Amino acid sequence: MSDLIHWFDLLGVMVFAISGTLIAHKKHLDGFGVVVLAAVTGIGGGTLRDIILDEPVFWLHDPSYFIAIFSAVLISIIVLNQQKQIPSKFLQVADAFGLALFAVMGTQKAMSIGMPATTSVIMGVLTGCFGGVIRDVLAGDIPLLLKGQLYAITCILGGIVYTQLMSFSIAIEVSMLFGMLTTLVVRLMAMRYNWVIHVFKY
Amino acid sequence: MSDLIHWFDLLGVMVFAISGTLIAHKKHLDGFGVVVLAAVTGIGGGTLRDIILDEPVFWLHDPSYFIAIFSAVLISIIVLNQQKQIPSKFLQVADAFGLALFAVMGTQKAMSIGMPATTSVIMGVLTGCFGGVIRDVLAGDIPLLLKGQLYAITCILGGIVYTQLMSFSIAIEVSMLFGMLTTLVVRLMAMRYNWVIHVFKY
Amino acid sequence: MSDLIHWFDLLGVMVFAISGTLIAHKKHLDGFGVVVLAAVTGIGGGTLRDIILDEPVFWLHDPSYFIAIFSAVLISIIVLNQQKQIPSKFLQVADAFGLALFAVMGTQKAMSIGMPATTSVIMGVLTGCFGGVIRDVLAGDIPLLLKGQLYAITCILGGIVYTQLMSFSIAIEVSMLFGMLTTLVVRLMAMRYNWVIHVFKY
Repeated sequence: MSDLIHWFDLLGVMVFAISGTLIAHKKHLDGFGVVVLAAVTGIGGGTLRDIILDEPVFWLHDPSYFIAIFSAVLISIIVLNQQKQIPSKFLQVADAFGLALFAVMGTQKAMSIGMPATTSVIMGVLTGCFGGVIRDVLAGDIPLLLKGQLYAITCILGGIVYTQLMSFSIAIEVSMLFGMLTTLVVRLMAMRYNWVIHVFKY
Repeated sequence: MSDLIHWFDLLGVMVFAISGTLIAHKKHLDGFGVVVLAAVTGIGGGTLRDIILDEPVFWLHDPSYFIAIFSAVLISIIVLNQQKQIPSKFLQVADAFGLALFAVMGTQKAMSIGMPATTSVIMGVLTGCFGGVIRDVLAGDIPLLLKGQLYAITCILGGIVYTQLMSFSIAIEVSMLFGMLTTLVVRLMAMRYNWVIHVFKY
Repeated sequence: MSDLIHWFDLLGVMVFAISGTLIAHKKHLDGFGVVVLAAVTGIGGGTLRDIILDEPVFWLHDPSYFIAIFSAVLISIIVLNQQKQIPSKFLQVADAFGLALFAVMGTQKAMSIGMPATTSVIMGVLTGCFGGVIRDVLAGDIPLLLKGQLYAITCILGGIVYTQLMSFSIAIEVSMLFGMLTTLVVRLMAMRYNWVIHVFKY
């Protein structure tokens, strides 16, 4: 089981590292800083989660995360340099996959150390969203998260589905899968159909 | 006593959550991200303080903070949607109240775990100012804190008043009240009379 | 030895505090916020390192860092107000010195608590680069780190030289000196000869 979680974690880190590389390309950033931006995007959310939970930060004793980041950046750069034009949707789809993986992973980690359900779901939001928030801030953008699309709320939905399934003693693999699917599907549909939440009347 | 501190803390979180919602409105942000911005503004400074002090982060086991944030955001949104025009001073006044509450709360928490006076006052600055700094950065603004008004320094004054009164064995409630009043009054007067500190000659 | 490290640390903090003050001047910031920006630049990287390593944050019980920051800011302001024109290279040179000191100090601290070499070198990058990253973000700039010059990579080189020399049982003072020189020389040469790394073909 903990193997499965590790692989999901690596996958999420890679997907977000790709999204960091795409943003770097879009904003005409360059150099080794691209790797730094990708790394911060990939491990930023989980690092913040572990710091707030006062857990050992997940990558300190595990260099595999850096191999994953480096590979993801390398592949992204090669593809970007060949394709020149990457469909603009691609970044958002990569982001959606990372969101789905991390929202549930973050919720799971918080629950596994005995946090209450509310805090666990919030940790999922933090893990899923804050890598991207740091990415956008460093790249000089207002975070995607703040722009009215269904974003943070898809993490909350995934986290709730996961915690609810777990409370019915459903197997953790199944609970995680359905949690992730919830976040992913809602996020993709929100993108596809331009769902937005308006809280302000302007 | 710890009840009083908890209520002050909740009040400070709500006031800063309101300021986060106001900035979100002003910058035409939208969606659930508004709640995230409000939450980060409300609990960001205290979270950073607890992380740096290596204390358990104050909201991990206390969902009341999230109820407070959500209520503050909801009320702010309703008022904003009815009023349409909020006097521009209102954001700054809300910010000043949050500053006063958090500057003293932060100093108090650091002192209560045996930090030296200098560090405690700095923790007050951090608790008071950094929720707003994160808010401004996420909203794409240069932090208010860096613009020459009396801002961080009002937290230092409040923190010094509080620590000095405590060193004369004055009751903690009284010391806190006078510390908060110091920050609040100096900040409000700085706003009213456009007090600025110029360190550079241009 | 730990005395030497403390002095190097203070020196690095002062150099970065100067760079923070120079940015504040360049961006027409003002007031006590300049001190806050300088402080965040000076101790931000090391604070993040200690938080991630779950070590006691280095300045909590040591007010000498704040005396160092305050002195550095004061001197910088006096010079800036007299000179009016500071050669634009000066900020980058100050930054390079801070980078060199902190890259090796960060690597050293991580190694001294038993972190693997990869993580230690990354901690050096973090200590060296993230004070400047926070400085640039707060000042509303895209971090220097992301702009294609040899920046983060000079920290990696310095960290590798240091860890390699240490693994050959070379004295720590010598290892640190050569590590710092590596970062400093490569960074200065990159600035002098406009070395850039291009990872993207546009």
